[in-house]
Amino acid sequence: MNWHSHSQIFYQSGSFPGSPRYGQPMNKARIEAFSDGIFAFAATLLVLAFVSPEVSHTAAVDSQLVTALLAQWPHLFAYVLSFSVIGMMWHNHHALFRLVTKVDRRAGLANLALMAVTAFIPFATSVLGAYPDTRSSTVLYGLTLTSSAIAFNWLLMHLVNTKSFAAHVNRSTINQTIHAYRVGLSTYVIATFASLVEPLAGLALYILIVGYFLIPRGADTDFVEKSD
Amino acid sequence: MNWHSHSQIFYQSGSFPGSPRYGQPMNKARIEAFSDGIFAFAATLLVLAFVSPEVSHTAAVDSQLVTALLAQWPHLFAYVLSFSVIGMMWHNHHALFRLVTKVDRRAGLANLALMAVTAFIPFATSVLGAYPDTRSSTVLYGLTLTSSAIAFNWLLMHLVNTKSFAAHVNRSTINQTIHAYRVGLSTYVIATFASLVEPLAGLALYILIVGYFLIPRGADTDFVEKSD
Amino acid sequence: MNWHSHSQIFYQSGSFPGSPRYGQPMNKARIEAFSDGIFAFAATLLVLAFVSPEVSHTAAVDSQLVTALLAQWPHLFAYVLSFSVIGMMWHNHHALFRLVTKVDRRAGLANLALMAVTAFIPFATSVLGAYPDTRSSTVLYGLTLTSSAIAFNWLLMHLVNTKSFAAHVNRSTINQTIHAYRVGLSTYVIATFASLVEPLAGLALYILIVGYFLIPRGADTDFVEKSD
Amino acid sequence: MNWHSHSQIFYQSGSFPGSPRYGQPMNKARIEAFSDGIFAFAATLLVLAFVSPEVSHTAAVDSQLVTALLAQWPHLFAYVLSFSVIGMMWHNHHALFRLVTKVDRRAGLANLALMAVTAFIPFATSVLGAYPDTRSSTVLYGLTLTSSAIAFNWLLMHLVNTKSFAAHVNRSTINQTIHAYRVGLSTYVIATFASLVEPLAGLALYILIVGYFLIPRGADTDFVEKSD
Repeated sequence: MNWHSHSQIFYQSGSFPGSPRYGQPMNKARIEAFSDGIFAFAATLLVLAFVSPEVSHTAAVDSQLVTALLAQWPHLFAYVLSFSVIGMMWHNHHALFRLVTKVDRRAGLANLALMAVTAFIPFATSVLGAYPDTRSSTVLYGLTLTSSAIAFNWLLMHLVNTKSFAAHVNRSTINQTIHAYRVGLSTYVIATFASLVEPLAGLALYILIVGYFLIPRGADTDFVEKSD
Repeated sequence: MNWHSHSQIFYQSGSFPGSPRYGQPMNKARIEAFSDGIFAFAATLLVLAFVSPEVSHTAAVDSQLVTALLAQWPHLFAYVLSFSVIGMMWHNHHALFRLVTKVDRRAGLANLALMAVTAFIPFATSVLGAYPDTRSSTVLYGLTLTSSAIAFNWLLMHLVNTKSFAAHVNRSTINQTIHAYRVGLSTYVIATFASLVEPLAGLALYILIVGYFLIPRGADTDFVEKSD
Repeated sequence: MNWHSHSQIFYQSGSFPGSPRYGQPMNKARIEAFSDGIFAFAATLLVLAFVSPEVSHTAAVDSQLVTALLAQWPHLFAYVLSFSVIGMMWHNHHALFRLVTKVDRRAGLANLALMAVTAFIPFATSVLGAYPDTRSSTVLYGLTLTSSAIAFNWLLMHLVNTKSFAAHVNRSTINQTIHAYRVGLSTYVIATFASLVEPLAGLALYILIVGYFLIPRGADTDFVEKSD
Repeated sequence: MNWHSHSQIFYQSGSFPGSPRYGQPMNKARIEAFSDGIFAFAATLLVLAFVSPEVSHTAAVDSQLVTALLAQWPHLFAYVLSFSVIGMMWHNHHALFRLVTKVDRRAGLANLALMAVTAFIPFATSVLGAYPDTRSSTVLYGLTLTSSAIAFNWLLMHLVNTKSFAAHVNRSTINQTIHAYRVGLSTYVIATFASLVEPLAGLALYILIVGYFLIPRGADTDFVEKSD
């Protein structure tokens, strides 16, 4: 047994030969729990972009304070935007995992990349809130969202290639999902390029993309038709 | 299939046609887990309002330090207040979800708004702790709590309109809850306006509202009568 | 129906009349999950006491950096101490809840107080790490741990008074626990007073108390005798 | 009953005599949940190493901002490295616990030490990101990873000594794991010493070790052979 195989065992000790539990649903549940923790925690960390103002405790403290608080409106805007983005990603993540029955190591790697991008969102958001109309901040934000879409597509394509979907998920459902994920990625690429040309145009696109998702249309057909 | 429908699939991939699991309790459990995470994280982040004092390491370090620590009492007050508020919101959130059997996308949106307000509480608290007697800080705090009550009412009304309650929940229970949620919202609106006139009056109201909930009255009738 | 009763319903909507689920184990599971989140999060926040040194990027950057890092050893000491304390509290919390079958609102209030103290530990720790040998910092630390012991005793006494223990838990077990909790509280009170007289003596006591718990004695009798 | 035995009960109230539930799987599930929380939180806290740049709002804001952002590339590198490390540790932790049926107090202590090291990673990472090529920062990083490997080995050896593995786990699997854990520890010790001699060599080793794990080789044999 050489160093290579030993080391492989070390780092993937989950694949011990003879372990009858390997690859069971628990695996999936654990990845979901880890991911849920990061989604919720990243969303909560967004608030750290706000800064408690430091104004002198004089007679005019109140007018100074109200000015300092109102000056943080771009942070509030970025906060609401990113909270919506993370909520949307969390929704998509669970919608995807609900259709899946097995998660192998490559899928775990793609998911880890997705988590790393998710946990980065609070930083991109604080820069966007501090400089809402600059090219650098809006492009950074766009690159972050584009990266999340790339990770989502990577994860999806791997799940498709390894036939990891539940038996009840038919081919047309999978094809629609693939198509939709690609449309999603393209949208973010376009919005990022738009930011490069005109920051406020990029910003408008980020809002539109999330808003499109967030506001259910029609008679909330999900609910009526599928008793969701 | 046009862009619209593709994109819709992308963002609500949970509603894949043919998915037999859609709308099952797992959905509700996930939203609860996500919400529980945010309640717990937001409560824990409250401590970041305290600042470890920086005093010179001289002979008088101890007296300087004790002065600097005692000067943070308003932060301790705000900490206890907001921890109680978040505990109360967590209690109400679970009490509501316990009665519910299905959570559709609009309910998820209302819940996301509630979470965004919850995660904002640490900032409003740190401002309140830094400036406990100003109009700006107490109004900001009141607006935050009012927003949480609005989100709770939105969520409740949607659940009522979509008949999402469990079969055992009778109409009079629902009516009492609706009434109670409206009283709660009104209370926060009044406290916020009071802060606008006299900050300390608003502050007193915030304490009273939470204290009213926190201190069980009588012989803890919940326990005696309903074996809770 | 007057304001009082409406409001009571609002804030304790869990006690809706007719709810057959009220007081069931789910309640307990939720409080445990909320508490676990705060224990884990508070423990992780301890690391924020360390400060990434800012030294000039000159030829001597390495010697400056190593000096600045080594100067933070009191923070490392406080970090290990508080991580152990939170681990111990987490252990005790679960050991207690494992014996309990119902959690009413007063128990929830006592638990919320315990959580507020737990979430405060990172601040007391960062002050202790910054000023490890002052009276103010060691007393603050002692007051924090004493508060946690008070909350634990409050919680325990309420559970005892409301007969919330599982049927298999016999009276002598409960009496031993009550006694042990009181000894624990007394120990922290003594250590806090010791800090007031001689900070380093208090510090030594904090270490001894946690060390006493952390290092299993004998042949790990838990394991041998009770196959834990 | 003397002070000693009382106190022992206090701190290990889980070992109440007569408690029939003691040592059941719930115990293990709770330790896993606590550990999962810390893995996820520590990973998310990594983002705090990035600093939202403060540049003057003049005509040149964009070029200043892009410079300030690009200057943080070492933080991005350290972020990706540590996110991968924590992901790997999380994977190993679960792979190990999946094979285990009981967790006693000493195992809990070894696990607590592992968690303390895990929660420390964000600090070591922020120092590495700020000074990517110094001896102090790379050695600090190496010592942190070495400590995690020591804690993993301690935990494993205790589980082996107390025969805590499930019945289906055969001796050769355990021996391979022991060997692999020791190889892992040796690797980190070597990388730490390399950092002492040449920081960039150490850094390269940290990347290689994690990369070796992260990139599944061959046809992802886990999946093909064991339907993981």
